[in-house]
Amino acid sequence: MRIAELSRRTGVPIPTIKYYMREGLVPQGERTGPNQARYGEEHVRRLRLARALVEVGGLPVASAREALALIFSSGISEFDVLGKAQYALTPPRERAEDDVWDEAAAQVDELIARRGWQVKPGNPARRTLADALATLRRLGEDDYLDLLETYAETAEHLADTEVRAISRRGDLHAMAEAIVIWTALGDPVIASLRRLAQEAQAARLIGGTTEETA
Amino acid sequence: MRIAELSRRTGVPIPTIKYYMREGLVPQGERTGPNQARYGEEHVRRLRLARALVEVGGLPVASAREALALIFSSGISEFDVLGKAQYALTPPRERAEDDVWDEAAAQVDELIARRGWQVKPGNPARRTLADALATLRRLGEDDYLDLLETYAETAEHLADTEVRAISRRGDLHAMAEAIVIWTALGDPVIASLRRLAQEAQAARLIGGTTEETA
Repeated sequence: MRIAELSRRTGVPIPTIKYYMREGLVPQGERTGPNQARYGEEHVRRLRLARALVEVGGLPVASAREALALIFSSGISEFDVLGKAQYALTPPRERAEDDVWDEAAAQVDELIARRGWQVKPGNPARRTLADALATLRRLGEDDYLDLLETYAETAEHLADTEVRAISRRGDLHAMAEAIVIWTALGDPVIASLRRLAQEAQAARLIGGTTEETA
Repeated sequence: MRIAELSRRTGVPIPTIKYYMREGLVPQGERTGPNQARYGEEHVRRLRLARALVEVGGLPVASAREALALIFSSGISEFDVLGKAQYALTPPRERAEDDVWDEAAAQVDELIARRGWQVKPGNPARRTLADALATLRRLGEDDYLDLLETYAETAEHLADTEVRAISRRGDLHAMAEAIVIWTALGDPVIASLRRLAQEAQAARLIGGTTEETA
């Protein structure tokens, strides 16, 4: 199909398709003339995935590229599925570290040990969590930290459900794809459900109003 | 204090401080000369909050500005705390809607009704959730939708714990501030814990490796 058809099928505007191709999220089409190329079903699939990760999952383009490359690579191994697919979805951070951060990182290590989680030192989510905890500490939100155990239990419950469903897929490529999609899109699903539930609980506990907020 | 001291106290570089002031996240200092201004403790607090929301919580600058303006406004009401503080933290979306999206939005309404959540039609998280569900549907990830009920239960449990802790603060300003901080920073806390727990559960269920992933 031509690029216009690709755009119609996926709902992605042509300039966005060209941008994703330049950035390596979607492969170039097969050249059929000086200004023409042909696209196939894999382009449809990759384009939908690219848009899901970037626009809905909120991933930086570089992270989405890495995750997509992994899903569509031919030499995927079980180690890749368990490690790289998920690690690609935690954007790298570059932030100064200080005593408060070191304390937060130690707190993350203790939490992981206390819950008996087998997590490699290289999992980038360790640092993301330490960033958030250090920020809460700096803002004086120490009672927030009391909730950490509740969050950890909840995360364990979600992860158990997710990993069981993913492992039923069997095929490594299908598993890598599911990890990427579920991890990236699960973030906005959970974030929105939490906001909806917060409003509902606030209405029950603090006393709500039935007025519409503009 | 001068801007250099403000930067030292908060760890925020001077160009970033100036950017946040231009964008209205932090108020200007009190002018003491043609090129000098003086800053107080409120600037320290607002700067820390601004950075937490933007850099760690990942909020767009406009959303952070709205949330900060609300926390530091003088005429805050109970309606504001329950509605606006939280709504400010869900960035507005502009995306085309189609049949798949309409179905997803209906699914969100049903979920909210089924769980008995009292949520106003204007809560922007309804649309964010519909976006994510429509995206999953388009990617053919229909078995993901089976997990929705687990996510909703989990969100309810988290929200209950959070709102109880927040309601103990009593003062409306302190509550608005807590809602903003907890909602924005809870997102990366939950996202990282989920990734850590996923690795741990994958190691248990699929069979992990003790090798370090580079």
